[in-house]
Amino acid sequence: MGNPRKIIDVRGHPFGGDTPLICSPLVARTPERLIEEAGNVLAKGPDVIEWRVDFFEPITRTKAVVDTAHKLRALAGRTPIIFTRRSHKEGGQPVPLDDAGVIELYGAVAATGLVDFLDFEMEHDPAQVRRVRELASMHGTRVILSYHNFLGTPPLESLLERFEEAERQTADVAKVAVMPRDRDDVLTLLRATALADAKLGIPLISMAMGELGAVTRMVGGLFGSSLSFAIGEGSSAPGQFPIADLKAVFDVLRRARGG
Amino acid sequence: MGNPRKIIDVRGHPFGGDTPLICSPLVARTPERLIEEAGNVLAKGPDVIEWRVDFFEPITRTKAVVDTAHKLRALAGRTPIIFTRRSHKEGGQPVPLDDAGVIELYGAVAATGLVDFLDFEMEHDPAQVRRVRELASMHGTRVILSYHNFLGTPPLESLLERFEEAERQTADVAKVAVMPRDRDDVLTLLRATALADAKLGIPLISMAMGELGAVTRMVGGLFGSSLSFAIGEGSSAPGQFPIADLKAVFDVLRRARGG
Repeated sequence: MGNPRKIIDVRGHPFGGDTPLICSPLVARTPERLIEEAGNVLAKGPDVIEWRVDFFEPITRTKAVVDTAHKLRALAGRTPIIFTRRSHKEGGQPVPLDDAGVIELYGAVAATGLVDFLDFEMEHDPAQVRRVRELASMHGTRVILSYHNFLGTPPLESLLERFEEAERQTADVAKVAVMPRDRDDVLTLLRATALADAKLGIPLISMAMGELGAVTRMVGGLFGSSLSFAIGEGSSAPGQFPIADLKAVFDVLRRARGG
Repeated sequence: MGNPRKIIDVRGHPFGGDTPLICSPLVARTPERLIEEAGNVLAKGPDVIEWRVDFFEPITRTKAVVDTAHKLRALAGRTPIIFTRRSHKEGGQPVPLDDAGVIELYGAVAATGLVDFLDFEMEHDPAQVRRVRELASMHGTRVILSYHNFLGTPPLESLLERFEEAERQTADVAKVAVMPRDRDDVLTLLRATALADAKLGIPLISMAMGELGAVTRMVGGLFGSSLSFAIGEGSSAPGQFPIADLKAVFDVLRRARGG
């Protein structure tokens, strides 16, 4: 049900197609462990990997990050890489870098051409968002503007507004993640995704987190989400489950629509 | 997430528990084929079977139906059986019996004690619904009052009203099936199910039909549906998929909630 206008091709991986891409996070703390984790995770065949650099202890040493990015790309081959410092406020690990430092790091990594996406929270100062957009564009890297709410699920209109805000800020992809408190919140997230999919011209990623929301990681694609996170070795957010399980569900959904 | 107050025990099968029961329809046209179909279907391990007697050519010969019910029960052991003449208007096969004849047949089958549920459409004349309820109660058989809309998906309030109407008419289980025209209809069916589950004291069955609605057969349990239909040998409604696929999805959902 993906809208063909919205498919963006990333190293031959169609972002925005009928079945969501499966993305596994890398959450290792050291360069050695990260490469080991990447090898193990890639063996499970995710479509995309996300390096959650807020878990990475040498995050302040740009050279260590860039060296590791080189090794990661060598291992990953054509598998797209999302480079993400998730802010503490939106569920990430605390890091000894201020936002300016993070943006500088994003610039250095984008300049290598080794990663395909930078994920940056849209709640940052608009000037910071613009700067990340500029740095990315300069080097042909794409930008995911993201919004995470670990406390609850805003109303439908506010969620739709988050997707729209990402597009206004010229994101290549908009991501919205919420914490549902009840079944209705789960359905609200799916409704907002479907509305945004009908309205926006960019691919979307959405999920309700936690046990209650886990179902959205399975069926979000039917409502317009282009990517779902699944555990390779370690989880990066509550409610994720193993790649093999997500693949099994996607296979059933594909067969159910006769594909 | 099932409400424990609502669990009804049918031959040791909990109707209304955390994971929906899987029910496979029997759609054979002759007594011989029905028994053969039942054997093949039971080998796939459904929790419940539904004999769709509107497909059964000797439906007008009560003795043939009762004899076949005996053989079916012998084969099924403790697997619950739903006995259903689906009306032509609600998606069933045309049969050479008027409603009075169907109710008489229901009475004769209930009297044998061989089946666990009679499914009757709530759109029938209220006197007919009462009569089916009486015949069932007389023999300790349970009643599913059902509503099927193959043309579309009524608004949320109308769907909730269908569930409530079933309870008002003293159904043991309420069933609502609709045809979605878009993603929003799929979510409306799930919302109505969740609302009804919070409000009613009986187990519910719900689904959106067709390819678009197939997802509700997988995840309806999270929103309060107690049973999902899956293909053993033959499909009885659009959007059903094989038992093995439904089991695989339920396994993933169970693991996702740590069960």
